[in-house]
Amino acid sequence: MDEVRIIEVKQSVFASNELRANKLRNDLKKKGTFLLNVMSSPGSGKTTTLTRIVNELKKDYKIAVMEADIDSDVDAKTIAKNTNVEAIQLHTGGMCHLDADMTRQGIESLTDDDYDLVILENVGNLVCPAEFDTGSSKNMCILSVPEGDDKPLKYPLMFEVSNFVLINKIDVLAYFDFDIDKCKENIKYRNGMADIFEVCGKDGRGIDEVCDYLRNEIEKWKEN
Amino acid sequence: MDEVRIIEVKQSVFASNELRANKLRNDLKKKGTFLLNVMSSPGSGKTTTLTRIVNELKKDYKIAVMEADIDSDVDAKTIAKNTNVEAIQLHTGGMCHLDADMTRQGIESLTDDDYDLVILENVGNLVCPAEFDTGSSKNMCILSVPEGDDKPLKYPLMFEVSNFVLINKIDVLAYFDFDIDKCKENIKYRNGMADIFEVCGKDGRGIDEVCDYLRNEIEKWKEN
Repeated sequence: MDEVRIIEVKQSVFASNELRANKLRNDLKKKGTFLLNVMSSPGSGKTTTLTRIVNELKKDYKIAVMEADIDSDVDAKTIAKNTNVEAIQLHTGGMCHLDADMTRQGIESLTDDDYDLVILENVGNLVCPAEFDTGSSKNMCILSVPEGDDKPLKYPLMFEVSNFVLINKIDVLAYFDFDIDKCKENIKYRNGMADIFEVCGKDGRGIDEVCDYLRNEIEKWKEN
Repeated sequence: MDEVRIIEVKQSVFASNELRANKLRNDLKKKGTFLLNVMSSPGSGKTTTLTRIVNELKKDYKIAVMEADIDSDVDAKTIAKNTNVEAIQLHTGGMCHLDADMTRQGIESLTDDDYDLVILENVGNLVCPAEFDTGSSKNMCILSVPEGDDKPLKYPLMFEVSNFVLINKIDVLAYFDFDIDKCKENIKYRNGMADIFEVCGKDGRGIDEVCDYLRNEIEKWKEN
């Protein structure tokens, strides 16, 4: 699959993103679609890590992936090629984030209507995506070792709104001044409820634990 | 110097940022202050690299540094402690970028009025800061090896508005799938005029070349 569909999403004209996010969340709940919103800086390894997660979870769930980007379709192509699940590219037209209405446009552009799990890879940005509720069931944030253990102190909202955080690229811990305990402490300082995982998207370390956790979250969500 | 001044900058109520940016640029030209706007992702090594650049250029120029951040004052403290030049922290109150008016508020908050060089470390973000002209004389962007060589394809505007780009963290090239020639090609694809430097903020490699380049840019700017 070398061609991916590109959806040009338009910013909502509606003032209340919060209301529309809740509406989308309710609509998805009725359909049984769990929406995972994945946020991080550019280059933290979102696409590589998601490829591994999708390849594991697709054994249990029908999955689609929406890749948001300002321009380019490299991520959707990569995901489609390496996982064989439906992957579409959302172009934000320069916007630095997705809101609930843009997310809905993406979901309504998917070929099928019966996905168990839709994964939204948000625009690479530690600031703006955190400000807009997409209507997701859960928010996941990836922070990679080369970015530094102080990022939760500098980008508070991202860590406050994330239900769980993946500390990625632990294979290069030896080459960076990164204190993993300090990083966890900084995440917990922003959000004491956040679950934290140490992973390496490149070699797969820790991915099984994340997948078990996600399966558990999806099953709990179904029961509520 | 363990205490740094924190300036809460307010977003401009004026519609035309472009006009105000040009006004600031003209005002700074009259005063002989070269404003360098530094942009990058979170964790690309802006503060470490700037510390080295400031310690070299302060031999020739009177320098101040303005560190923009959503929250925290860790960067201004680090710069002040490690360079002994005036460093202030600009708090953006959640905003993902600085505009010309916010930059002016920072410059007017500096203790002295006769700086040769003011360096603005913009909010860590590859998207939004590129959309707002700060009134800078030149824009510098840092892209670090762990972020990936494809970033100029995914964040076009940042590379279009940057006069020069530092490829940072070349000390870890061996541990990442990063093709430095491909990266340069991607930068040139977005901006054929961009000058590119390979550096390592941590060990200092390539910093002399950047400082020579900046000295030359400042001298050329003075003559115009």
